[in-house]
Amino acid sequence: MSHDTSPPPIAITLGDGAGIGPEILLQLMRRADNRADAVIYGSGHVMRLAAAQLTPDDPLPLQLIPLDQWRAGAPPPQPGAARIVDVTSEMPPDARLQLARMDAIPFGEEVAAFGHLQRHALLAAIDDALAGRVRAICTAPLTKALFARAGLPVTGHTELLSERTRTPDAVMMLAGERLRVALVTTHLPVSAISSHLTQEAIESTLRVTWRDLSTRWGIANPRIAVAALNPHAGEQGNMGHEEDAVIRPAIEAARADGVLAEGPFPADTLFARLRGDWPFDAVVCMYHDQGLIPLKLTHFGASANITLGLPIVRTSVDHGTAYDIAGRGVADAGSMQYALDLARRLASG
Amino acid sequence: MSHDTSPPPIAITLGDGAGIGPEILLQLMRRADNRADAVIYGSGHVMRLAAAQLTPDDPLPLQLIPLDQWRAGAPPPQPGAARIVDVTSEMPPDARLQLARMDAIPFGEEVAAFGHLQRHALLAAIDDALAGRVRAICTAPLTKALFARAGLPVTGHTELLSERTRTPDAVMMLAGERLRVALVTTHLPVSAISSHLTQEAIESTLRVTWRDLSTRWGIANPRIAVAALNPHAGEQGNMGHEEDAVIRPAIEAARADGVLAEGPFPADTLFARLRGDWPFDAVVCMYHDQGLIPLKLTHFGASANITLGLPIVRTSVDHGTAYDIAGRGVADAGSMQYALDLARRLASG
Repeated sequence: MSHDTSPPPIAITLGDGAGIGPEILLQLMRRADNRADAVIYGSGHVMRLAAAQLTPDDPLPLQLIPLDQWRAGAPPPQPGAARIVDVTSEMPPDARLQLARMDAIPFGEEVAAFGHLQRHALLAAIDDALAGRVRAICTAPLTKALFARAGLPVTGHTELLSERTRTPDAVMMLAGERLRVALVTTHLPVSAISSHLTQEAIESTLRVTWRDLSTRWGIANPRIAVAALNPHAGEQGNMGHEEDAVIRPAIEAARADGVLAEGPFPADTLFARLRGDWPFDAVVCMYHDQGLIPLKLTHFGASANITLGLPIVRTSVDHGTAYDIAGRGVADAGSMQYALDLARRLASG
Repeated sequence: MSHDTSPPPIAITLGDGAGIGPEILLQLMRRADNRADAVIYGSGHVMRLAAAQLTPDDPLPLQLIPLDQWRAGAPPPQPGAARIVDVTSEMPPDARLQLARMDAIPFGEEVAAFGHLQRHALLAAIDDALAGRVRAICTAPLTKALFARAGLPVTGHTELLSERTRTPDAVMMLAGERLRVALVTTHLPVSAISSHLTQEAIESTLRVTWRDLSTRWGIANPRIAVAALNPHAGEQGNMGHEEDAVIRPAIEAARADGVLAEGPFPADTLFARLRGDWPFDAVVCMYHDQGLIPLKLTHFGASANITLGLPIVRTSVDHGTAYDIAGRGVADAGSMQYALDLARRLASG
């Protein structure tokens, strides 16, 4: 039996089968360069249905590889076909049955079986990345609510990655060509930000960001700006105390260890500097929208989500499952391609 | 005695004399069109010192007009000279003396007398606008800390305008050519945003924004987007309850009265739409940085601050006193010119 001897490919996880994931993956796999070094982790049946529904006149050839066979040794790629590592064997029997009986993808609907599928596609890819069977993971969007529908704990990509790879200090970064933002807090209500903002959390985000930029991204002495939490950076304590209580001490502690962190800068004037020369390799932001507003305004559709601090490389699209347009063939694969290219770059770094 | 019979001019208030205010006003007044219909409210002595320090070889001619004389009837403009309405008679005697003895402006330093001057320049301009003696106010930046140094209550432009004109529901808006943002809460610590975010406050901001856009700006049926407070607009209550508890009810109440308000939209994807066709006349934002990050990223240097809901027209620069560069002659008057042009437009609307 002949085995593929090229370097390990990149795993692209399907995410939610009823969102725009299937169609952007099919678009991606139309490109020979992507087929050459990327494989989809998901369900062959779902991808076949998607291809039949979305491009009935010209369905993309698919090469289905059951997970156990893949792990025993990847079979040689079939020319012109997109490879799918089928993880459905990992799903509970009921969910597997629900999936097998599906004769069309109900785009835009919450399907319990897809909750299990999105989970196992990701877990299988993480395990294979840890084992060196794939060299990076690039994830299509999942729907958090599906976990609840499948009777699973509600969670997200970052949390599952953090847990499965035992990396409690994983950091969520969004990156485009000019701007990279790393978040100290992520999916929290605004009212809970302040209580989660500890010196330890800020320091850890600074150190992980610095380390990954230095190693994976290959940036010598990365320059990191730190955004203030409050308007006008708190204006000497008149509009909030977090700048003095936790942000400045975290910056000082990180600087003492050689991390080139600067700030805290008022967020509005900091990001306004993107209009001119932009000297920073990343901005550490205190909360979700503080980083994502300028990131998406600068780079939407050409940016990716990266989890820093992991023992593996993981990138992701910068958008969600877009139920409102799923299955119509109008989704833009730009961010997914950006995420895949970034995974390639980081995995070779 | 002959009096000027042209329409009332626009009052430009000096703000903090030790910041970049004097130099951007001198730059503005180099233009004949600005001299023709704008007058500076401040101190003739301070402007003379500034002209001597900043442009010793070519000081701009100044026409000093004491406030009482101005109010008795504006004297005819001197050709080529910038008009200064001198409000120092309103200052306490000690502060007036400190100012009179000044032989050079200590740029970048907090001067108690300038605390009184910035206050009285603004109050005189407000009173003259209410009396119809000027047709609008355009304000240079002030330094809040100066009020404390002068023994006055610490406050800001918006608060003084709101108080002096008895307009409790004044709204802070920042506007550039494409994007206008109106803020429900302004200078608050992030930890205090949620508790200040009431349905009443959001509704009032929506109504005032709608009314001013309709009347002053002359926009028929303005379309207003409402930003959510929490990431992903709270994701069905999983990340915050304010969207359901106060924002949606406020939108519905305003819509019932014909205000074209839409949302709440997740802030990051909402502002990302600025990359394509932008359908909104304004965005009502829940907090300072949510509006000011995208505004400054899109328009910094070419935007102005406007106070909505007042009985008078008031615009302002989009930046602060910039002590770090004050007195060096490098400040950019772009935003001040933008604010002045906007005041002209709104005053004629």
